[in-house]
Amino acid sequence: MSTVFTKIVQGEIPSYKLAEDDRFYAFLDINPLSKGHALVIPKQETDYLFDLPPALLGDLFRFAQQVAGAIRRSVPCKRIGVVVLGLEVPHAHIHLVPLNSESDVDFRKPKLQLPDGEMAALAGKIREELSAKN
Amino acid sequence: MSTVFTKIVQGEIPSYKLAEDDRFYAFLDINPLSKGHALVIPKQETDYLFDLPPALLGDLFRFAQQVAGAIRRSVPCKRIGVVVLGLEVPHAHIHLVPLNSESDVDFRKPKLQLPDGEMAALAGKIREELSAKN
Repeated sequence: MSTVFTKIVQGEIPSYKLAEDDRFYAFLDINPLSKGHALVIPKQETDYLFDLPPALLGDLFRFAQQVAGAIRRSVPCKRIGVVVLGLEVPHAHIHLVPLNSESDVDFRKPKLQLPDGEMAALAGKIREELSAKN
Repeated sequence: MSTVFTKIVQGEIPSYKLAEDDRFYAFLDINPLSKGHALVIPKQETDYLFDLPPALLGDLFRFAQQVAGAIRRSVPCKRIGVVVLGLEVPHAHIHLVPLNSESDVDFRKPKLQLPDGEMAALAGKIREELSAKN
């Protein structure tokens, strides 16, 4: 059975897409820790990040680097933090979290709920930043 | 002035070294969130992770992958989590944190203090695992 992230990649589950190529996909987390919180995944279904082939792992972070740059130009933050836990969904994913303090990456705190219009506008802004840069 | 991490690389400040090559260095965090918590850094002094040249960024995570594998074989854990915050020391660094639950990456909780002998033995074990694999 496909993971929830594969269903997102395939469009069976909608997402606020930020970027995609043949191997990777990035989209907004719908339960963000801070505004602009995104997930970056390999399309390949691998549970544990460090089980990815080394070349793919390296390229995943280079892809995430592009996305992080666009997020940083789109929301007010000091920088973009990186978190990979992987204890829930069995499909490796990188959290990119706009940071203003270390408490922004506390996964046990209540998540934000942003209106659909705000999420869509934010995703649009980040996509614009990505295409302006590339 | 050199960062505290450059002083560690240069041996001015002692560390429990795990791995080193011409571009990267890995060592145990002396205030670990969990036993086996390590830091992986580029020798190049760059404050923000995503300001690293893309090729170096990719290779840094491939280096971290080797270290994470050795840590996972050395301490009881489900997997190795990844966290990059970077709001304190102005020298990019990846936290590799052995995880059993998401609360293991709460940076505000009290850190562990392990006796020197235990840290040294742990570093030795991880280095053995690295050389056995390579």
